Amino acid sequence: MYTREIELSGHIIDSLIIPKALDLIMDMGGDFNILEFQVGKRKKDISYAKLEVKGDSEELLGEILDELSEIGAVVVEIHEVELKPSPKDKAFPDEFYSTTNHTTYIRFDNRWVHVEDIEMDCAIVVDTLKMSAHCKPMAHIKKGEMVVVGREGIKVIPPERPRGKLGVFEFMSSEASTEKPFKSVINKTAKEIKRIKDKGGKIALVGGPAIVHTGTAPILARMIKEGIIDVLFAGNALATHDIENALYGTSLGVSVNTGETVTRGHRHHIYAINRINQAGSIKEAVKQGILQEGIMYECIKNEVPFVLAGSIRDDGPLPDVITDVLEAQDEMRKYMQEVDMVIMISTMLHSIAVGNILPSKVKSICVDINPSTVTKLSDRGSAQVIGIVTDVGAFLPLLYQELKK
Amino acid sequence: MYTREIELSGHIIDSLIIPKALDLIMDMGGDFNILEFQVGKRKKDISYAKLEVKGDSEELLGEILDELSEIGAVVVEIHEVELKPSPKDKAFPDEFYSTTNHTTYIRFDNRWVHVEDIEMDCAIVVDTLKMSAHCKPMAHIKKGEMVVVGREGIKVIPPERPRGKLGVFEFMSSEASTEKPFKSVINKTAKEIKRIKDKGGKIALVGGPAIVHTGTAPILARMIKEGIIDVLFAGNALATHDIENALYGTSLGVSVNTGETVTRGHRHHIYAINRINQAGSIKEAVKQGILQEGIMYECIKNEVPFVLAGSIRDDGPLPDVITDVLEAQDEMRKYMQEVDMVIMISTMLHSIAVGNILPSKVKSICVDINPSTVTKLSDRGSAQVIGIVTDVGAFLPLLYQELKK
Amino acid sequence: MYTREIELSGHIIDSLIIPKALDLIMDMGGDFNILEFQVGKRKKDISYAKLEVKGDSEELLGEILDELSEIGAVVVEIHEVELKPSPKDKAFPDEFYSTTNHTTYIRFDNRWVHVEDIEMDCAIVVDTLKMSAHCKPMAHIKKGEMVVVGREGIKVIPPERPRGKLGVFEFMSSEASTEKPFKSVINKTAKEIKRIKDKGGKIALVGGPAIVHTGTAPILARMIKEGIIDVLFAGNALATHDIENALYGTSLGVSVNTGETVTRGHRHHIYAINRINQAGSIKEAVKQGILQEGIMYECIKNEVPFVLAGSIRDDGPLPDVITDVLEAQDEMRKYMQEVDMVIMISTMLHSIAVGNILPSKVKSICVDINPSTVTKLSDRGSAQVIGIVTDVGAFLPLLYQELKK
Amino acid sequence: MYTREIELSGHIIDSLIIPKALDLIMDMGGDFNILEFQVGKRKKDISYAKLEVKGDSEELLGEILDELSEIGAVVVEIHEVELKPSPKDKAFPDEFYSTTNHTTYIRFDNRWVHVEDIEMDCAIVVDTLKMSAHCKPMAHIKKGEMVVVGREGIKVIPPERPRGKLGVFEFMSSEASTEKPFKSVINKTAKEIKRIKDKGGKIALVGGPAIVHTGTAPILARMIKEGIIDVLFAGNALATHDIENALYGTSLGVSVNTGETVTRGHRHHIYAINRINQAGSIKEAVKQGILQEGIMYECIKNEVPFVLAGSIRDDGPLPDVITDVLEAQDEMRKYMQEVDMVIMISTMLHSIAVGNILPSKVKSICVDINPSTVTKLSDRGSAQVIGIVTDVGAFLPLLYQELKK
Repeated sequence: MYTREIELSGHIIDSLIIPKALDLIMDMGGDFNILEFQVGKRKKDISYAKLEVKGDSEELLGEILDELSEIGAVVVEIHEVELKPSPKDKAFPDEFYSTTNHTTYIRFDNRWVHVEDIEMDCAIVVDTLKMSAHCKPMAHIKKGEMVVVGREGIKVIPPERPRGKLGVFEFMSSEASTEKPFKSVINKTAKEIKRIKDKGGKIALVGGPAIVHTGTAPILARMIKEGIIDVLFAGNALATHDIENALYGTSLGVSVNTGETVTRGHRHHIYAINRINQAGSIKEAVKQGILQEGIMYECIKNEVPFVLAGSIRDDGPLPDVITDVLEAQDEMRKYMQEVDMVIMISTMLHSIAVGNILPSKVKSICVDINPSTVTKLSDRGSAQVIGIVTDVGAFLPLLYQELKK
Repeated sequence: MYTREIELSGHIIDSLIIPKALDLIMDMGGDFNILEFQVGKRKKDISYAKLEVKGDSEELLGEILDELSEIGAVVVEIHEVELKPSPKDKAFPDEFYSTTNHTTYIRFDNRWVHVEDIEMDCAIVVDTLKMSAHCKPMAHIKKGEMVVVGREGIKVIPPERPRGKLGVFEFMSSEASTEKPFKSVINKTAKEIKRIKDKGGKIALVGGPAIVHTGTAPILARMIKEGIIDVLFAGNALATHDIENALYGTSLGVSVNTGETVTRGHRHHIYAINRINQAGSIKEAVKQGILQEGIMYECIKNEVPFVLAGSIRDDGPLPDVITDVLEAQDEMRKYMQEVDMVIMISTMLHSIAVGNILPSKVKSICVDINPSTVTKLSDRGSAQVIGIVTDVGAFLPLLYQELKK
Repeated sequence: MYTREIELSGHIIDSLIIPKALDLIMDMGGDFNILEFQVGKRKKDISYAKLEVKGDSEELLGEILDELSEIGAVVVEIHEVELKPSPKDKAFPDEFYSTTNHTTYIRFDNRWVHVEDIEMDCAIVVDTLKMSAHCKPMAHIKKGEMVVVGREGIKVIPPERPRGKLGVFEFMSSEASTEKPFKSVINKTAKEIKRIKDKGGKIALVGGPAIVHTGTAPILARMIKEGIIDVLFAGNALATHDIENALYGTSLGVSVNTGETVTRGHRHHIYAINRINQAGSIKEAVKQGILQEGIMYECIKNEVPFVLAGSIRDDGPLPDVITDVLEAQDEMRKYMQEVDMVIMISTMLHSIAVGNILPSKVKSICVDINPSTVTKLSDRGSAQVIGIVTDVGAFLPLLYQELKK
Repeated sequence: MYTREIELSGHIIDSLIIPKALDLIMDMGGDFNILEFQVGKRKKDISYAKLEVKGDSEELLGEILDELSEIGAVVVEIHEVELKPSPKDKAFPDEFYSTTNHTTYIRFDNRWVHVEDIEMDCAIVVDTLKMSAHCKPMAHIKKGEMVVVGREGIKVIPPERPRGKLGVFEFMSSEASTEKPFKSVINKTAKEIKRIKDKGGKIALVGGPAIVHTGTAPILARMIKEGIIDVLFAGNALATHDIENALYGTSLGVSVNTGETVTRGHRHHIYAINRINQAGSIKEAVKQGILQEGIMYECIKNEVPFVLAGSIRDDGPLPDVITDVLEAQDEMRKYMQEVDMVIMISTMLHSIAVGNILPSKVKSICVDINPSTVTKLSDRGSAQVIGIVTDVGAFLPLLYQELKK
């Protein structure tokens, strides 16, 4: 029998980490003894468990420890991480350690080194001179970079579910239900936004064109103007229909005020793109007085940064759209580690994209009228995202009302 | 060749009746000559067409005329309706004429007699003494009643799509889209309600429990108190959760104010039913001061009639629930011919039930976060219903705000 | 401090019962000591925990014990149940104990008495002479019957999640996902059905009209003929469209073979109902040779019992439909305690109705193309139901193929 | 009054073109006289109408003619198209004519010149030397190219709905219903595929990763091997999960055979990408024997071309993915004018992308379990796409079975 001692600590009862760990060990064919078990009795108390984990073979024990480490277990007798050079550009060495989106440390040179820029499905690259560790996506890897392989010396800290009911992020499960009390969802979201802004925190908004179609572009424009939103992630569609709305009063050819289809309106979006392309950029169009209102206008006027990521269904696109998706990802990454909250509205594509590169510690809500958007986000590993199934045409105005109270 | 002349008149171009008629004739293997064709050129002008319809056999010609009559065609050389006695209680004679939900006349004793209480999938029973005609569902038929059979002597008047864009009922197609400008939908619905109320018209509301779950019961209660809603159709669930909310502040055990699950809350709905059953009825509970607010309270206080129809998924049920579904249908029928507008909110079961017995001339909107509810209503023949795909938790408050402007 | 000792045993780690219990106590403001804790290490081993639960007041302690009992905790020092007479017909006494759908025992006369006919949201009525206990819905209560009140002396045994992966009911979570491997779902469901039939078990099918619309009525008819299905629960719609299909080859007027709309086909369903009403019943129609194939035909021919429950959206209805919903519930209850598995197909109304009266020990799967049907079932307390989001038109044929292998 | 004569011909009754035309004229405030009207009486006969269209101003008349031309009206007295040079790269001149996806001709040098490479929302560029016209997206425009402006001299030929019921494309409306007879949909689709293949036609498949998740990758691989599919459009996800499945037997970490989550399986997709990146390309990985089965393997082996278009939610991506979306669009365009049918399966992003560049004459079906995918395709102008709402895990195997009969 091969054995190893592990420790688990934190809100391991409330966060169901202890039963998950025991389950895991036994499901995988291992065994265990509970060496110590202290239960934190008050909301803020943490619990602690020390287990002896056993396996028939060294390989099995390794696999079990591997899985355990993803839920926060730390091996008591700590080894250093193992490093291997990457064999070529844009490829990791075999057996590379694939990251989670949780806060991560590696054991290197007898210290716990924090992994910078953490995001899921990447590798950890160590700078052995600077003694620093970074999370890197595959596309960024250069031949010869030292990459963490195996599972020794890695400590993962999953987000905990603290006891008690403190905010929107605790009260709602990640399940997307259409039968939740609407007002209390709005109130709790507003409260969380205020709390973050009061602390000087940053809020990112990821938005789809339905914001414009439903007539809520003016609300979002105002939120940008008033500094509630610190960075905007979107695609060609949101920007195009926002500009279409500013120039022609329509979105996808439908009058935003009357809801009626406008004669020749289905050409407005391509006309709008053409006007901006003639000007050279959205910023130029604002300067030349062509664009005088709307979401993109307020971004330019108030120097709120935006990333418009291209997609293969784009018409045009606008000159500000980054048509290379890897470049667009990198541009989004610049902001991702700094934000305190992400609000995702009516865009499955961009929400999953942001979810992919977002650390799990960042609070996120995803607002969509289609419950499957939220389910898919969660299936793809962004388990921390809170889903709100509602009509964006109603959500943003009521959220804004609540914020202004 | 067997021939017959028919006439079509009204907005037969705009309502696509002319091409449907020509299509029908040829699809069924018939032939035609256009004898006259006058096109109304202004919005209010009606068009007129006279066709000679031909078929190889008398049977085929009959079938073609049959279908044509459903879209409003009238045979020029009019025959009287044919009547047969029903063979037993709750059964029609063979070849009975199955009604549409459109305004209908029958040719009897050389006059056009209006068919009272029209609804779809029923038969027309003629009182040969009083010279009157009534639409009757199968369950109401008595042996020996004289029922219209075949298709001679029947004139159907489908609703027309008048030219121009006048209200919510013209501007929205029956397609359920989640990408419509939200505010203009609210505005147009509010305008239509005001128009009806100003004329002294009546508005029915068909509601599901999501009204309570989403925290909008107080809004609906106020609309009832203020006389906006004239009759309420619902089931045990809406009434139970409304009373649960009034007595315990929860809906399905979730606090409507905070959105949090309340300890032992999942028992509140059955406790609420028990309280009313102990009192004897909702009215008694109001009298005894047990029930002091909410939707059902306002119905009792303001003498707004309600029909609570039972369903097999009911807990309890409340003593006011009509557990026999045929009785419940009859109770609903008492109001159906009188109302000018029906608002259906978050209940597929009751919405389809109301759609089944509603004349096509009554304007209806169906509000649901699930697009398939609207699709199913339409598939079941209630083509006149306008679908609004949105969150009821947002719709009612914003509609009420707009109504109070 | 008021204290009480409780015991938890079974697969309390795997089923997450231990952390739920500790969570509960602390969330509600209580405290605890772990007196004993033994962890079962092999798949079949059970775990055991003894806790001392504490509360500031007797009331609080009572509430905590109350909640704990629902997840299976048993108070070590056992009290007898308290009984009160019901104050009137169809009403429970105040503070009645509202049942779960889990296997339940009560402590009476110093013995654990099994509660018969368990279903959720009912009361427990004790026959003090016969020393027996029955679960009774509110509508069945007679004045003076002795009803369990409070929470002393009640033992609830929730279903456990045994370790390991044994069948479809363990491998799928209750989450409804559209991205599951389709073939393995079919295989596991078939295996479970075979296992039950091999043991002489009984399978109920709850079906909606989409079974007929999608052209799968012949498959279900064959499953009934071959004895796979032991009882059918449905509404007027399934039976009507099945008979429409048998008589006219259409369902809702659409040819089931070609998918084309048939001339005058929208009247076929009402004609079908009329034919059966003329005959007097489905059985009579089979006898007279009117009905010669289909789901209902095979039920009659093979003496497979069926319950057709009425709903307010019914046309007709067929003479076999039970129009009183309480009567229909009682008719369904006759079979519910005997079945070993329930397959729910494409009917939210009837699935929730069956879920309401089904013990949690009965394995259930719910097949629907709409994920929200499954979510709603689960929200209403039928947590044991496994959801399969797929097209019923594909599911039944492939399941049948697999069963015949 | 300004007047102009127009002609409409073809199946203008069945395709509802005549009433749409009259409606349009009057809705826009114009007027008309019917100068000639001949109705084709047999299935293959075409109808003909000549109208005199009137407007108060030249501008109004222009707008009316503009709209009429989109539904196929041709001005009797034909003018030449007007051309203007584009002002800069990637921008059209003002008032450029924005294309439909219908077959289009322009009047140039007294002849009707066919517009090559037609797709929606582009401009028509004329090569005045070669006397040819091409449809060009905005991103391809070079400064100085001669672009069609205004609406004179343009003839658009929308697809017609021929009388009678000939194939899947005629029998199903574009409405996405979950209640269609499943078998007849499969049969008709198979028949259409056979018809196209028999004529030597080409079929494109646009696929999402759900094909792999649901376990149907082997079926699609076989269809590629057998020459049924001529070109594959997909993204990084389909290819990655197909390769994950080939290398590890999982898709998104779930075993495709058993449906169970595999230990460490959520890393398989990134390991799969890494293996291919180490090899250099999918083709190299096939050569080196790393990849030995699956969809991508069969594409390489059978030289079936594929386009993998990047998206911002991509992990990795695979080296074969085109990360610039404009490049990816152009790569797709190479095949789009040649294919006879497009089958879109479970991918909204790629389906809309293909819909954007597909001529309306190409028959397309879109298979998705989510009805909103089809609705959105249609809202974005791809009205010719037939929607089938079903489970892809069932659809492809049954379609293949039917094709092999």
